[in-house]
Amino acid sequence: MPLCTLLTDFGTADGYVGEMKGVLLSGAPSAHLVDISHDVPAQDVEFARLTFARYWRRFPEGTVHLVVVDPDVGTDRKALAIESDGRFAVGPDNGVLSPAMLLPGARAVALDIPHGAAPTFHGRDVFAPAAVRLLNGAALEELGAWYSDAALRRTPEAQRRVDGGQDGLVLGVDRFGNLITNLTARGDGTVEIDGKLLRIMRTYGDVSEGDLLALVGSHGLIEVAVRGGNAARTLGIGRGALVTLRRDP
Amino acid sequence: MPLCTLLTDFGTADGYVGEMKGVLLSGAPSAHLVDISHDVPAQDVEFARLTFARYWRRFPEGTVHLVVVDPDVGTDRKALAIESDGRFAVGPDNGVLSPAMLLPGARAVALDIPHGAAPTFHGRDVFAPAAVRLLNGAALEELGAWYSDAALRRTPEAQRRVDGGQDGLVLGVDRFGNLITNLTARGDGTVEIDGKLLRIMRTYGDVSEGDLLALVGSHGLIEVAVRGGNAARTLGIGRGALVTLRRDP
Amino acid sequence: MPLCTLLTDFGTADGYVGEMKGVLLSGAPSAHLVDISHDVPAQDVEFARLTFARYWRRFPEGTVHLVVVDPDVGTDRKALAIESDGRFAVGPDNGVLSPAMLLPGARAVALDIPHGAAPTFHGRDVFAPAAVRLLNGAALEELGAWYSDAALRRTPEAQRRVDGGQDGLVLGVDRFGNLITNLTARGDGTVEIDGKLLRIMRTYGDVSEGDLLALVGSHGLIEVAVRGGNAARTLGIGRGALVTLRRDP
Repeated sequence: MPLCTLLTDFGTADGYVGEMKGVLLSGAPSAHLVDISHDVPAQDVEFARLTFARYWRRFPEGTVHLVVVDPDVGTDRKALAIESDGRFAVGPDNGVLSPAMLLPGARAVALDIPHGAAPTFHGRDVFAPAAVRLLNGAALEELGAWYSDAALRRTPEAQRRVDGGQDGLVLGVDRFGNLITNLTARGDGTVEIDGKLLRIMRTYGDVSEGDLLALVGSHGLIEVAVRGGNAARTLGIGRGALVTLRRDP
Repeated sequence: MPLCTLLTDFGTADGYVGEMKGVLLSGAPSAHLVDISHDVPAQDVEFARLTFARYWRRFPEGTVHLVVVDPDVGTDRKALAIESDGRFAVGPDNGVLSPAMLLPGARAVALDIPHGAAPTFHGRDVFAPAAVRLLNGAALEELGAWYSDAALRRTPEAQRRVDGGQDGLVLGVDRFGNLITNLTARGDGTVEIDGKLLRIMRTYGDVSEGDLLALVGSHGLIEVAVRGGNAARTLGIGRGALVTLRRDP
Repeated sequence: MPLCTLLTDFGTADGYVGEMKGVLLSGAPSAHLVDISHDVPAQDVEFARLTFARYWRRFPEGTVHLVVVDPDVGTDRKALAIESDGRFAVGPDNGVLSPAMLLPGARAVALDIPHGAAPTFHGRDVFAPAAVRLLNGAALEELGAWYSDAALRRTPEAQRRVDGGQDGLVLGVDRFGNLITNLTARGDGTVEIDGKLLRIMRTYGDVSEGDLLALVGSHGLIEVAVRGGNAARTLGIGRGALVTLRRDP
């Protein structure tokens, strides 16, 4: 049973995702469709990239990942299908697929645009049909010409400080209001954010309800959280805010 | 593997959709459930009708579409199952299924209401059980008596003007803030909305970031959009607003 | 085809649910994943418990229900797998699984925590792997030691009044703004809420558009609603508000 995941910023109520699913299942009736999300903030390619980075490699080999966050649809930006570490991904050439593309051995093709494709809805008319072909066993190179110039986005790296710490920033805010930073640590040190100093704890339960803490999140990056609360709201800060990691003396 | 899509205005958090899915999979364990949306604005039959119009025919023949946006649940409104173009649909008789019902050859039955059905939750007790029977291969006429009086809703048509243009209106606003109108065009002309004149472009990329434009959307209807923005918010207008298409002289 | 449902408060946009789905399908590739909801209010165990109560038994025997609303993740709260009435459920030991646990014959084990599990994401590293084992046919006792001390939450019961009525409260508010109470009735009597007296009706259609009414909801509990409107907004009240049922004299 071939697997196809879907990540878009379409919401679901308008039926655009419904159209895509219809195309997918008309072309690959035995595919198992797996919704990742359709609630990515509209046109936020960077948000979608960070989301895609989390899940794409957790799925089994052969999975086809469909990713459509595509503010430049209909311009001359390329449409891509890629193969990386045994998984496939299909989406616009705006960097959203970088987490898979940056892995050694990744390969990409620029999709042929079908005649009559709506210039405002490549999700339905370009990407879903390409996913169908992959779900039905087509090889990557059957979908278009090899393409070596894919747009790449990278997570900004924290800067090493002379005192052994790091200067970084908040990459994003999750649904719980946790501030995900680009600071990396093995669990020791103190985080400075918005003038506050927070020792790195192991988990939420290490502080009292309502207290701020820093911890190493499930992806190895330092997060700032409020136990039972919302750190972004408590601090009034969000994506792009500066944070510093101070090593213990 | 029989396919069953779901469109409701229930949200998901309360578990009503969960109950329906349990009924569906208890009765048809091999069915593949496909969420279209549960985020239709509460009790907005017209919104749901436009959404249903988009996707129902994109799915393969034999698909069962379950549509429950049902403000009059428990009154004497009929409960319907219909067959149209090889697909099935189940839902209340309030016009939401019109896109399928208006196709030549469509047939409908009025569902028998099972004894003990909750008068406030036909989704679980009437529509899901009917979908189960269709998923298991029942013929339409096994579900109830033929019914030829289904409520029909039609998209209001734009009015032809003496100068060759059209007077129309905004049918809805999608998640991106695009204003979907009932104006039809092959791509030429100028759209007047809220005192502004917008030439019809091919796609978003034909104007600068933040600029208003009109274009022919993926369903052949004219849309008004802001590149990288939200036209509904920019113009402060929504469903029902008047628009005019002016032909080029 | 083994069934696995998912209920979380993660939202979908951040990709945490995507990670869990990847773990599930990597371990049990033929499983059919069924989203219940990811929109439970953040960290609201009580809300999730009421949602879980609605759907868990509607699914066929053998279904694995994954429930991750887990504000105390990473503390020493136990992680549970339970078997009840032929269904399985996996989730934190905070009472969210009580509806299944309170059924006679229910059994629970405390899950072994895999070495290296992220202390902030047991959904991915503890609960999803346990669900995989159940989906692949493991017996409950293979997942950990028997555990008889699971946290239990019960829906507060309405209090019987000397006049034969009941004093109760609003358990929750659904997406339509319906106030779900803990009053039980077979359909007769009058509900007092916020100083208003409402006769119990059969369904929304028994009153005029915009009018308040009380009715017996689809789970046998009395609800207060506004036909075509939102009772919570109209009355300005929500969870915890007091309600009284007066028997007819």
